[in-house]
Amino acid sequence: MAEKSLTVREIAAEVGGEGEGDLERPIEDVKPIAEAGPRDITFVANQRYEQEFARTLAGCVVIPSKLANGDRRTVIRHANPYLAFAKLVALLRPPAPRPAPGVHPSAVVAPSARLGRDVAIEAGAVVAEGASVGDRATIGALAYVGPGASVGEDARLYPRAVIYHGVSLGKRVIVHSGAVVGSDGFGYASDPTTGRHEKIPQVGTVVVEDDVEIGANTTIDRAVLGATRIGRGTKIDNLVQIAHNVEIGPDSLLVAQCGISGSTRLGRGVIVAAQAGIVGHIDLGDRAIVAASAGVTKDVAAGEAVLGQPAIPIEDGRRAYALIGRLPEIKKAVAALEKRLTKLEEAAATEDAAGKGEESRDRGAM
Amino acid sequence: MAEKSLTVREIAAEVGGEGEGDLERPIEDVKPIAEAGPRDITFVANQRYEQEFARTLAGCVVIPSKLANGDRRTVIRHANPYLAFAKLVALLRPPAPRPAPGVHPSAVVAPSARLGRDVAIEAGAVVAEGASVGDRATIGALAYVGPGASVGEDARLYPRAVIYHGVSLGKRVIVHSGAVVGSDGFGYASDPTTGRHEKIPQVGTVVVEDDVEIGANTTIDRAVLGATRIGRGTKIDNLVQIAHNVEIGPDSLLVAQCGISGSTRLGRGVIVAAQAGIVGHIDLGDRAIVAASAGVTKDVAAGEAVLGQPAIPIEDGRRAYALIGRLPEIKKAVAALEKRLTKLEEAAATEDAAGKGEESRDRGAM
Amino acid sequence: MAEKSLTVREIAAEVGGEGEGDLERPIEDVKPIAEAGPRDITFVANQRYEQEFARTLAGCVVIPSKLANGDRRTVIRHANPYLAFAKLVALLRPPAPRPAPGVHPSAVVAPSARLGRDVAIEAGAVVAEGASVGDRATIGALAYVGPGASVGEDARLYPRAVIYHGVSLGKRVIVHSGAVVGSDGFGYASDPTTGRHEKIPQVGTVVVEDDVEIGANTTIDRAVLGATRIGRGTKIDNLVQIAHNVEIGPDSLLVAQCGISGSTRLGRGVIVAAQAGIVGHIDLGDRAIVAASAGVTKDVAAGEAVLGQPAIPIEDGRRAYALIGRLPEIKKAVAALEKRLTKLEEAAATEDAAGKGEESRDRGAM
Repeated sequence: MAEKSLTVREIAAEVGGEGEGDLERPIEDVKPIAEAGPRDITFVANQRYEQEFARTLAGCVVIPSKLANGDRRTVIRHANPYLAFAKLVALLRPPAPRPAPGVHPSAVVAPSARLGRDVAIEAGAVVAEGASVGDRATIGALAYVGPGASVGEDARLYPRAVIYHGVSLGKRVIVHSGAVVGSDGFGYASDPTTGRHEKIPQVGTVVVEDDVEIGANTTIDRAVLGATRIGRGTKIDNLVQIAHNVEIGPDSLLVAQCGISGSTRLGRGVIVAAQAGIVGHIDLGDRAIVAASAGVTKDVAAGEAVLGQPAIPIEDGRRAYALIGRLPEIKKAVAALEKRLTKLEEAAATEDAAGKGEESRDRGAM
Repeated sequence: MAEKSLTVREIAAEVGGEGEGDLERPIEDVKPIAEAGPRDITFVANQRYEQEFARTLAGCVVIPSKLANGDRRTVIRHANPYLAFAKLVALLRPPAPRPAPGVHPSAVVAPSARLGRDVAIEAGAVVAEGASVGDRATIGALAYVGPGASVGEDARLYPRAVIYHGVSLGKRVIVHSGAVVGSDGFGYASDPTTGRHEKIPQVGTVVVEDDVEIGANTTIDRAVLGATRIGRGTKIDNLVQIAHNVEIGPDSLLVAQCGISGSTRLGRGVIVAAQAGIVGHIDLGDRAIVAASAGVTKDVAAGEAVLGQPAIPIEDGRRAYALIGRLPEIKKAVAALEKRLTKLEEAAATEDAAGKGEESRDRGAM
Repeated sequence: MAEKSLTVREIAAEVGGEGEGDLERPIEDVKPIAEAGPRDITFVANQRYEQEFARTLAGCVVIPSKLANGDRRTVIRHANPYLAFAKLVALLRPPAPRPAPGVHPSAVVAPSARLGRDVAIEAGAVVAEGASVGDRATIGALAYVGPGASVGEDARLYPRAVIYHGVSLGKRVIVHSGAVVGSDGFGYASDPTTGRHEKIPQVGTVVVEDDVEIGANTTIDRAVLGATRIGRGTKIDNLVQIAHNVEIGPDSLLVAQCGISGSTRLGRGVIVAAQAGIVGHIDLGDRAIVAASAGVTKDVAAGEAVLGQPAIPIEDGRRAYALIGRLPEIKKAVAALEKRLTKLEEAAATEDAAGKGEESRDRGAM
């Protein structure tokens, strides 16, 4: 995969790190730490991979600024090795294949659709009436852009992404395969006498702001009225569910298989870990953190972290949930105490009775 | 978005509510409560939005029959404001775009497929051999109807829905993008000596009855034999998993990311909330309710509501699960009791020993 | 659906079981136990279905070797009735429709793609530049095989499966509709000052070994570097999430809606039940078992089974988690003990005070 060769010194300069060791060593590729050889660079993001660091055959390793380097390997120290890695890949690897501009003859673009300059529409894609696709955007194979939907400049829809009618995607938005943006919210008015559910038309839309990334097979429902909104720079993993009228602030992270119920609002920089669920109609403040698998049932304040089902503040929660495993022991302890206490009580009662006896005798003696 | 103008009086009559205030006021659109202006109508479904009701600039608000209206706003009182809202949208908003009848030239319809009257087959859709599509049904762009599958009258498949071979969809069924109906059930016979898993052919099918709605990227597996069955009027949200041979009664609601394991049966009007999971081979009675994130491991009686992992009756469950957060405190209380009890026991033992001493002295004195 | 007729004797020989009763009885089809008639065979996999066994009208029933047959029905005894059933279906049912070899005229196959012999490419499928499809493989309708991806011999992609660029699928791999293999891992370097998330290019790939089955709408992310790897014979259910750089050994089972976080490694024959979640960077040993809905936060040893959130060994876990429901009772018991203990302490204190009083009097008397 080697495209070119750079010295450790050149790489250190490019990624903004501090080289140490053989700065003239030529590096050709970036590889996983276990596979890297003398002409490869790799990285250690944290302490956890210390052993791998000791064993790697890599020609150079990007390490955290303060990691010990007892073996005096050739390294580049960096405040954020993971970020440095992002730059290494851009330096040393060919970019992922990106389709050349043009409309594939098998694609179906409605006459009223507006395509910007240098747009790429891959095989079998469908762009419906009144839709617009911004300059340099890519509509992947078999993807669908519905009537009146708009796709921003430099956006990329991977094969088979679906954008429903009227949905708006900002600039540089990435939508992975199978994601569905703009499906109907789950809204029914139930008739208490017949038990039947009448569909509430979902006539709102979805607004996805600039620089959002949406994972594979994730679903984002359109609002019943108004808009479901995903803030600038927010990143959404695979198989996430975002219900109607949810509003998510900028720079939030939603990890795989989490779900946000209707009308809930997330602030800026919120993190929702994998498989967590959040009920509807609540607020999560800026930089709130929801741990994996948590079930959030009420507001979370800005900066607060919660854990568990039901979710509670994380410091308490870690201790509390870890104690579930000790419940049999706690229950046993309570039963043992009960027994010992009963014994003491009986002893006391006997003594007391004896005492009372004495006392009555005493009284009798009075 | 205004299509026409109606008076509050006319709207009240149409939605079956009771107008109050300026009944001749003209209304042009329905909007979210925070965005509505003097020519818009909006609604308040419950108490929770009382403050928004107080602040809205809407020309008219649909409110629950008994909500106080201290500010004497122009309102329409209605037993079910959410249901009224469904009617408002139909009155005031243009319907969502629905493709015109006809087969798009890029669609592929097998010669042996049967298409009803006024069917719309959008761009890139595939209708396989022996499939049938009922009158006025829509097969969305890039959707797939497998060999021998049947789609009922007035059904709507959104773009990229997939119906496997032989599956049957009733009338007015709605299938959102990315949903897969009829994929193989997860069935293997495992060889205990080699550890290998031999695939059990899944030769059954799926029957989806009339008026069912299936959310985006939901999966419903075909039966190993016989049929997986979704009862009339049941509504299924996004990313739901329904395993082989599951049977769901009519008018049930399955909320996002819940999962029903193989051969489990749900009655009529059952509600399974978001992210709940239900094991295989059990029964949930009519109108049973499973709370969000619950893990149901045994039968649930008709009308019963359960919560938690493992799921227990909801009244007990709410109290019980809330106590997890207090486990550290409970454990501490037990430890403190233990300590106090030990102290008492020691005191008692000393006293007892003293008593015994006295007694023996007494005896010695005999 | 009857294709032919076989006697009970012939069927017993074919499936390797022991016939009992009317061995010359003709059998034409295999049906669910509740629907089977005198010319059908059915099966009972376990004790649980004893009642159905007693009531069935089936001409023959495959039963576990040691099940009682008090009614002297015509049966075939078999060590693994479910496995026998797999063979019955192959014997008595026509195989599921499989497209005839050939490239549908509406499919788009890039000039540089390599197709093996007897390959079937269905309507609307897209095979990109440099991709290869092995002999007798099927690419379903509207499925996508990305640039440079390879599909092994006899593999089957169901309609609308997506294989990203460079991904490799082994022989006989089955990919159901909507599954996405090779989407970008969820990797960002976050800038602590701006709060923005910079995308880490995901330049690795996914390797899916022979005989793997991947369920509908499941997502498997490509590695950041190197490969996400699914071992030979592993079976993955619907809506499963497998993150970047995960490695799964052979013959494992991943049930619906479970999720495996980045860089976690599963051994051979591991079972992850429905909706379970596993954190990143940990190891699950061979034949480890993760119960449904469990949240695994640390390594699981070979052969160990875990349950709960957080997950703990299953024997402890079952008892422990069942006690959550009894927490109100435990808390009450602790409060009652507290009260009783206080009373005893007070009594002891009084007595002690009395005793001390006596003692001091005694001393005073010295």
